[in-house]
Amino acid sequence: MSESFIATQFDALSTPKQVRKAIRDNEFVGHTSGLAKGFVQCNLVILEQALAADFLLFCQKNPKPCPIVAMSDAPGNPVISTAGTDIDIRTDVPKYKLFKHGVLVEQPLDIKDYWQDNFVSFLLGCSFSFEEALIDGGIEIRNITEGVNVPMYNTNIACDSVGAFNGNMVVSMRPMLAKDAIRAIQICSRFPNVHGAPVHLGDPIQIGITDLDKPDYGDKVSIKPGEVPVFWACGVTPQVVINHAKPRISITHSPGSMLITDIRNSQLSIF
Amino acid sequence: MSESFIATQFDALSTPKQVRKAIRDNEFVGHTSGLAKGFVQCNLVILEQALAADFLLFCQKNPKPCPIVAMSDAPGNPVISTAGTDIDIRTDVPKYKLFKHGVLVEQPLDIKDYWQDNFVSFLLGCSFSFEEALIDGGIEIRNITEGVNVPMYNTNIACDSVGAFNGNMVVSMRPMLAKDAIRAIQICSRFPNVHGAPVHLGDPIQIGITDLDKPDYGDKVSIKPGEVPVFWACGVTPQVVINHAKPRISITHSPGSMLITDIRNSQLSIF
Repeated sequence: MSESFIATQFDALSTPKQVRKAIRDNEFVGHTSGLAKGFVQCNLVILEQALAADFLLFCQKNPKPCPIVAMSDAPGNPVISTAGTDIDIRTDVPKYKLFKHGVLVEQPLDIKDYWQDNFVSFLLGCSFSFEEALIDGGIEIRNITEGVNVPMYNTNIACDSVGAFNGNMVVSMRPMLAKDAIRAIQICSRFPNVHGAPVHLGDPIQIGITDLDKPDYGDKVSIKPGEVPVFWACGVTPQVVINHAKPRISITHSPGSMLITDIRNSQLSIF
Repeated sequence: MSESFIATQFDALSTPKQVRKAIRDNEFVGHTSGLAKGFVQCNLVILEQALAADFLLFCQKNPKPCPIVAMSDAPGNPVISTAGTDIDIRTDVPKYKLFKHGVLVEQPLDIKDYWQDNFVSFLLGCSFSFEEALIDGGIEIRNITEGVNVPMYNTNIACDSVGAFNGNMVVSMRPMLAKDAIRAIQICSRFPNVHGAPVHLGDPIQIGITDLDKPDYGDKVSIKPGEVPVFWACGVTPQVVINHAKPRISITHSPGSMLITDIRNSQLSIF
């Protein structure tokens, strides 16, 4: 059966467990956006234990780009019980990226053959959660309306560095009217575990972005007259920082192919 | 004794009760800004009972410019027990404005001689409370730094009208960097009873303001390079709306000479 045919078996109403099962069996190999609506999807970072402590501290110091939702139960243990039932991080992400010394070398559908007993897994919050909250709040998300990836940009905002981990924050941008930007700040402030409130709005050059029409990652979106660009800390930041640190081995999810957890987005709301 | 000498007897550390007592005895007749730090100061509106129901509904429909903190215990009763102990609204405001058919006719130090047994008093939240919260949050308030009144502007934002009460929202403006604007939105969102989150930021013309250097009320303030103007719904709105409605008689506080309540600003925080 073709991938696209299989993909139609899953939708917003699928449960996280259903989708993870199909992913584990390699029956689903696509983007997870829009599946199992209401549940937190996560970015994945896997590092060797020797680097994991520094990365954990890096995340603690830079919570907006690197919000930790869950971690593996123990080094070498592929289970992440705080994120859901029976999650096996070696198989439950549709597609992985395997890096050696910061260079992409493989994009496997599972990482059973690459697993090491010193691997530590980090699940980081992703923008899908706050985009869902904003849409539920009646706010248009331009990249969704236009069916493209959100535009992302390198900035001049330095992360707090820890050991080998350092670099500038990457941000995503969503244009909206000022009144919607104010409401978006309120809504996103409730969700610090999925990037939280925006880090900037308005003049892009203030954070080192020279041309909104030329994102460093993702696609450009339309900005309508009277709209303000609003910038959120982005989960690409840890990927850039990790590749810059050139660890002997590191594994991430493939962009858009996330781990679907059993945690509800509403559970992440702090009030 | 001169007014200024007396004024120095009261400061941020004075209790609301101390200041109200001096005001009641006409020993203090100045602006209340900075006195009894931490306590809610209120705008005052007094209307005849026949109009009070419509005004109450107007406030309910327009909570950002007209946030009701407390009301008189009953028509004709000068006590407002939900705002503090032994408050007598006829004497406890330093200076009043008395309007007939929307025209200012007197500015008495008390309103004992004008009191009617059908008067209903409204205490409305004021920007002093959120400015204190912003300053506590490390955000500079330009009008305070520059020692002037906050600039206020008529806008094209129509209030929801009720009976004779209608008009456009008046806003106050505080310039700040985008990162401070984001933080200010978070802080002010906790205080819906003192105007809440801003109603606009950025381009003034979008809300009908053509020249920030020419406020309709208050004073202009400096806007530094890179700063964004941030606009809050303002307590001048109900005054404009009431004067437009031309009630037979209405009484307000004199701007800056507020009622100091026993309610702590922190008590107004909704989380």
